[in-house]
Amino acid sequence: MKLATLKNDTRYGELVVVSRDLKKYISASSIVGTMREAIDHWDVHAPQLQALSDQLNDGDVAGKDFDPTQAMAPLPNPSQWADGSAYVNHVELVRKARGAELPESFWEDPLMYMGAPDAMLGAHDDVEVGSEDWGIDMEAEIGVICDDLEMGLSSEAAADKIKLLVLLNDVSYRALIPGELAKGFGFFQSKGATAFAPVAITPDELGEHWQDGKVHRDMLVHYNGDAFGKANAGVDMTFNFPKLVSHAAKTRHVAAGAIIGSGTVSNKDSDGTPGKPVKEGGLGYSCIAEIRMIETIDEGKPSTAFMKFGDQVRIEMKNDDGSSIFGAVDQKIVKFG
Amino acid sequence: MKLATLKNDTRYGELVVVSRDLKKYISASSIVGTMREAIDHWDVHAPQLQALSDQLNDGDVAGKDFDPTQAMAPLPNPSQWADGSAYVNHVELVRKARGAELPESFWEDPLMYMGAPDAMLGAHDDVEVGSEDWGIDMEAEIGVICDDLEMGLSSEAAADKIKLLVLLNDVSYRALIPGELAKGFGFFQSKGATAFAPVAITPDELGEHWQDGKVHRDMLVHYNGDAFGKANAGVDMTFNFPKLVSHAAKTRHVAAGAIIGSGTVSNKDSDGTPGKPVKEGGLGYSCIAEIRMIETIDEGKPSTAFMKFGDQVRIEMKNDDGSSIFGAVDQKIVKFG
Repeated sequence: MKLATLKNDTRYGELVVVSRDLKKYISASSIVGTMREAIDHWDVHAPQLQALSDQLNDGDVAGKDFDPTQAMAPLPNPSQWADGSAYVNHVELVRKARGAELPESFWEDPLMYMGAPDAMLGAHDDVEVGSEDWGIDMEAEIGVICDDLEMGLSSEAAADKIKLLVLLNDVSYRALIPGELAKGFGFFQSKGATAFAPVAITPDELGEHWQDGKVHRDMLVHYNGDAFGKANAGVDMTFNFPKLVSHAAKTRHVAAGAIIGSGTVSNKDSDGTPGKPVKEGGLGYSCIAEIRMIETIDEGKPSTAFMKFGDQVRIEMKNDDGSSIFGAVDQKIVKFG
Repeated sequence: MKLATLKNDTRYGELVVVSRDLKKYISASSIVGTMREAIDHWDVHAPQLQALSDQLNDGDVAGKDFDPTQAMAPLPNPSQWADGSAYVNHVELVRKARGAELPESFWEDPLMYMGAPDAMLGAHDDVEVGSEDWGIDMEAEIGVICDDLEMGLSSEAAADKIKLLVLLNDVSYRALIPGELAKGFGFFQSKGATAFAPVAITPDELGEHWQDGKVHRDMLVHYNGDAFGKANAGVDMTFNFPKLVSHAAKTRHVAAGAIIGSGTVSNKDSDGTPGKPVKEGGLGYSCIAEIRMIETIDEGKPSTAFMKFGDQVRIEMKNDDGSSIFGAVDQKIVKFG
């Protein structure tokens, strides 16, 4: 099933069930008011929501027209927002661009940072940024929404706790990262709000494309209307979602409603080299930093600029028939203040 | 006024108003059900809660006996949990113990990390830990609970957004920190659950001891029944709370209900040297790491061990008459799993 949260006059919106083709929706208010309440008691609510979803998809209830511009983040108030960096190709490129070796442990122990769980944008919300000097970048990712996680649970146990999948843009401020990481406490001001595609889906919506705890579909990124990336999210994902979820709960219980992110989707080229741009026949990139790294490795310095006010980013994932799975993140960068 | 959240059969408990002397409470359910709902609409609910608090303190309503062992964290589901490191004395000691200089910028730009906002313990909840090898430590801190923060707000504007104060134990796993910080993404598994004293208070409850955005009271730490620390939280706090709050909202809007922490309270000795233990007439420490650093500086290696299963930590702050302000964090370390 597919679920969304529509804007209303409250902080956490109204939970709705959306049809598979994203055309119709019906309020879930007869079952549960918000997504957080739904995930807080998933075993109770999921079967009821699924039944409503079946009715909507079968045409047994009419539904209203779904307008993705009215969507908030599907889960606007997660219990926590922990973002991994599972595509080690991406991490290796970052290092290579500054001439640093990748520690061997990075292939076995996931990188993960704790993000701000309260700065969650809807798919069409503007990205408000204080200054272009922050080095504005997108990061196209998949995330999972989990049930309660007991401290120390195994990857196998974690697999059963993954209840929903989301598509997201983890806005990053590249110019603020080096100074912040040098302080040693990780990302804080260098991460902006995070934006989510309109609907969260249960893994079964992906059919055979949800396998081994990975989403085997292309991450389609458009930047100012041009194709920018189409890396396959199931390829070069060193750590699958169960492994990331297990990592997140290693030393703490994690409450239902956590979103665990994959990190920027990134593929090597078929010849094993870093990916080429889409216009050169490559798979392109899910963030601007990556093309800049490749330019730095190839030419000594980056030539692609970070995002400017007015720039537009669109992130989507499609079925074989071209229909949208999560709906699209489609956002403009705007100046705040 | 003083507010607490009592355990019931829900995830987020029941908001109650507690008398100034912490002896009586009355349910706030006629006004608002949970602390998060209260802080989500603070301007509406605060005057109503204050009126109920006045009635309780004046004896106009009877109230029931307040049992701090039944308290959850006052705000068990904050919008985010961001922890600063405002006592730069503490940071300088950490560095000195490993022979590293403190960067000059650390006196102007706060250190802050994003913590897990869903792992909030009540004052008397056990600290469940997987292994003593993690290097179990306490960190006695003050935190503030804020209203909505607009991106980029000034320290002056931030001062008005501080609605409640809390006392907390930021459980840390020292043995996991070096490896995790070396990876560059900050604390994640190296932080445990965070425990909170039973009540949150409005700043006016401190009278003249809330000044310049700091709490001018001693942080009383007992470790296995012995006095371990009594540093004054208003002394050597390089960044006051308005500055920390402003830092947290520098590049993102922050939703109402964020908890911003001070970091481990730490005072230099009166002669300017690192603090002495309480039994040697000093102010002692708010974490074990600090005494170990001083031992390392003085003797080449630490002699005090980190916490073991069965150890007890008690953290409290008192009025001049010896009465408890927030109630006490009083926890035992236990093995999980």
